[in-house]
Amino acid sequence: MSKGRKTRSAILSEALSAVSTEGFQGISIGMLADRLKMSKSGLFAHFGSKEELEKAVLEEAGQRFMAAVWTPAKAFPRGRPRIEAIFRNWMDWSLHTDGMPGGCVFMKLSAEVDEKPGPVRDQLSEMQARWQATLARSAQIAIEEGHFRPDLDPRQFAYEMQGILMALKYYRRLLRDEKAVERSQQAFADLLARSSVRH
Amino acid sequence: MSKGRKTRSAILSEALSAVSTEGFQGISIGMLADRLKMSKSGLFAHFGSKEELEKAVLEEAGQRFMAAVWTPAKAFPRGRPRIEAIFRNWMDWSLHTDGMPGGCVFMKLSAEVDEKPGPVRDQLSEMQARWQATLARSAQIAIEEGHFRPDLDPRQFAYEMQGILMALKYYRRLLRDEKAVERSQQAFADLLARSSVRH
Repeated sequence: MSKGRKTRSAILSEALSAVSTEGFQGISIGMLADRLKMSKSGLFAHFGSKEELEKAVLEEAGQRFMAAVWTPAKAFPRGRPRIEAIFRNWMDWSLHTDGMPGGCVFMKLSAEVDEKPGPVRDQLSEMQARWQATLARSAQIAIEEGHFRPDLDPRQFAYEMQGILMALKYYRRLLRDEKAVERSQQAFADLLARSSVRH
Repeated sequence: MSKGRKTRSAILSEALSAVSTEGFQGISIGMLADRLKMSKSGLFAHFGSKEELEKAVLEEAGQRFMAAVWTPAKAFPRGRPRIEAIFRNWMDWSLHTDGMPGGCVFMKLSAEVDEKPGPVRDQLSEMQARWQATLARSAQIAIEEGHFRPDLDPRQFAYEMQGILMALKYYRRLLRDEKAVERSQQAFADLLARSSVRH
């Protein structure tokens, strides 16, 4: 990696870490420059504006999410086994995300920017819509493989899976409920059972 | 209402409206004073600090939530009818909240402060834990009334209901998905059906 790319990567890691607990409103170019012992102008050389930095943070988080959740799941057989792998990986991402002490940045940012029109909101919304489509497509494949009921609505499956993961963040991070993980596993096992063909 | 109480109430309404789109990080005493054409010192006479203001906003939102969601639901018969009323009222609160253009402030703030230790986080966490306990208690009553299965876990019911409402905010506010409401109704109808005693 070139020195420029290394610096850029260090800035993004520091930003992602701060955003996971504070959101976009909690970071500034000046604050990141301080933490990284860089000059503000040095940091501006990499990201010309706060908005550009925010968009790069989303891009970086998206790549990490796909590498942690989606890519390893693709190694599992199509259909239900792959969906079970997505759930496990997504839970791990939400609970133990390296370098994101506040947990899933997407849930943090979804709540932060949902009513703030602009390119950052648009980018996040598009990424999240793509992920919902990926979940729905995975459920569709599980129907085709004969694992899920033919009358299952794949987009409804994605909606309910999203809700289970959002409640996990809330029970675990805000309520500090000891049973948060168990509850999300129970809810997902139930979603799988009622989505599956009965034998 | 005394002039002092009227002013306090006007400040809280303005703050609640801003918090629903911007979160706590988006408000300041100076900004509210500007919007209300008050002096900063006038505003400080009501709320001595930003933290005090935030705690009062939570209190105000909690009272509005209970008046909009819980109180009217209590007029319905115990058990399943009351839980159905809670869901309808909670959806209305989330979608059409008067004076909260950004939607449910609790979902906004839960994501914002979940990893910010302090009295504001503690107050929100306690309020939200109480609400989860109220939902679980309502499910427990539905078991006692013979509406819900005796082996249902009332706290698991509350967890899944919370997830459905969180996904509604996300699908509606971030994704601007036209089917958000329909999906949440479908998910809740399904939760009710699988919680109920089969006839």
